[in-house]
Amino acid sequence: MRRIVLLALLSLTLVGGFVESATGQVDALPSWNEGPSKKAIVEFVKQVTKEGSPNFVAPAERIAVLDNDGTLWSEQPAYFQLLFAIDRVKALAATHPEWKDQEPFKSVLAGDMKGVLAGGKPGLAKIIMMTHAGMTSQEFDRIVKEWIGSARHPRFKRPYTELVYQPMLELLSYLRAQGFKTYIVSGSGVEFLRAWAEKIYGVPPEQTIGSRLKLKWELRDGKPALLRLPDVDFIDDKEGKPIGIQQNIGRRPILAFGNSDGDHEMLQWTAAGTGLRLMGIVHHTDAEREWAYDRESSVGRLDKALDDARQKGWLVVDMKRDWKVVFPFEAK
Amino acid sequence: MRRIVLLALLSLTLVGGFVESATGQVDALPSWNEGPSKKAIVEFVKQVTKEGSPNFVAPAERIAVLDNDGTLWSEQPAYFQLLFAIDRVKALAATHPEWKDQEPFKSVLAGDMKGVLAGGKPGLAKIIMMTHAGMTSQEFDRIVKEWIGSARHPRFKRPYTELVYQPMLELLSYLRAQGFKTYIVSGSGVEFLRAWAEKIYGVPPEQTIGSRLKLKWELRDGKPALLRLPDVDFIDDKEGKPIGIQQNIGRRPILAFGNSDGDHEMLQWTAAGTGLRLMGIVHHTDAEREWAYDRESSVGRLDKALDDARQKGWLVVDMKRDWKVVFPFEAK
Repeated sequence: MRRIVLLALLSLTLVGGFVESATGQVDALPSWNEGPSKKAIVEFVKQVTKEGSPNFVAPAERIAVLDNDGTLWSEQPAYFQLLFAIDRVKALAATHPEWKDQEPFKSVLAGDMKGVLAGGKPGLAKIIMMTHAGMTSQEFDRIVKEWIGSARHPRFKRPYTELVYQPMLELLSYLRAQGFKTYIVSGSGVEFLRAWAEKIYGVPPEQTIGSRLKLKWELRDGKPALLRLPDVDFIDDKEGKPIGIQQNIGRRPILAFGNSDGDHEMLQWTAAGTGLRLMGIVHHTDAEREWAYDRESSVGRLDKALDDARQKGWLVVDMKRDWKVVFPFEAK
Repeated sequence: MRRIVLLALLSLTLVGGFVESATGQVDALPSWNEGPSKKAIVEFVKQVTKEGSPNFVAPAERIAVLDNDGTLWSEQPAYFQLLFAIDRVKALAATHPEWKDQEPFKSVLAGDMKGVLAGGKPGLAKIIMMTHAGMTSQEFDRIVKEWIGSARHPRFKRPYTELVYQPMLELLSYLRAQGFKTYIVSGSGVEFLRAWAEKIYGVPPEQTIGSRLKLKWELRDGKPALLRLPDVDFIDDKEGKPIGIQQNIGRRPILAFGNSDGDHEMLQWTAAGTGLRLMGIVHHTDAEREWAYDRESSVGRLDKALDDARQKGWLVVDMKRDWKVVFPFEAK
């Protein structure tokens, strides 16, 4: 029987799958170790989906919101969207000879990350605007798809989309199978996410919420286009997350998962509703298989939200202890 | 057999229903007269849902966007949300004695619509901000629900939610039964719409797109709230409609319905996609059962979009000719 379980595990696809366990029960979360985290998730889902239960929630109200960077995929050594922007600067350098002498582009082209970061937020904003604006939404979609299909992560030498967390893919599938509507609520750009999130996570563009640039309507030879302007419209981080949820969904989630202080308000907003709810944090505790960081990290800092989670009894998932497998490729 | 059809028609609920026609075929649009408009809709839906058809569209891509004012419910003698705001000024007047001498409130309280309109957009903005901002999203939801449950339309002496178009309710149900995701894309405030649109149209809050005020995150005694600020965040009208669609849905619709020049860009955006699509306009031609207006109306002006529709062969629904029944109460 164990051999069958193993074979089933090996056949897991990126979008997850259900595995029959040794007891004959279907296990929707085979990459989660048996323990308090898995138990808390399964128990919560059972409670809210069981008709007649005092905690029953109608399917229309089963809204689940999950952060992306550090919650569904890795975010080290830097947010992958920033790595995209840096690659994009390099790709565009030939048509911008002036960048050789202009910061922050000069440092980017020299591969000098310290120099890039020395420019602070204004420097990063220049990089983002130069690489993310000035084209239509359709053109940007194509640019991101090309990059995501060809770029490789510096440590793992694999496409970034392989650095997604197998246990979280299983959680997404499990929630959807139980009538939840799964949303991504990310600080990343929404059009960056949408270029690949549906294929990788099974989350459609209309359930992907993120930061936005302003868009401009244009008629080009009578044909309409939406142009991405170098002007921030909305930052979907910290207090922006509940605001983005209210603007886009208009219902309060009953489940929220994050991994950093940027998710704190989203977790608080979810927690403040009535009835049973689940607030979860992915705690990066596995330097060997992934990374270990929390309070001192400049990327994905987890400090106040961790204190709050412990005080309020939110679920803190310990990656090292709770996850049998981190990335899908480990199972292959 | 005709008697059976009639009985079935009489049993139609607000969310529409399917009726067996005299030929034995299920008629999903019983309140539409047989003719070119009904035929165009049914033919389009058949084409895009028929597997193997060159025009087949996968369910995930079957996005339908419909304006609200003048497309799903009436908008005369003024947009119903403005009538809500005016009623709200009256309800709040007791706690604002200063309004007796302050425009535009003075004119509102005197029932002097000309005086209200004399204040132009700044005057209307004052009315909207005073009645729509300064409370949480939850409080506003309750205020709108109370009003919509008790207010009566001046001409029909019925709740505003009874002034929805029976043929459009049937269209919404028909599209959903055929795998479409139906969205409202309205110039009205999104939180005004969400307070009642799900119950009336079967369109959930996450598929309702509209204009927005800015929201502010607040902790009140540790409990989070989203406060509606007197500051416009987004106007979902004209070029705002395709922008709102791109921000919220991230896919181009294959069907769009509107009734005024405010919907023109949404119709153009929909039309500019590849593959078969349906662009429709509700033309108000029935002064007896509803209203008759187009190019000269200050509410719901239909001028350029009508020219464009005729030039490009978009569907122009003639309310008087095409609709057997306008409002659900006529069938009862």
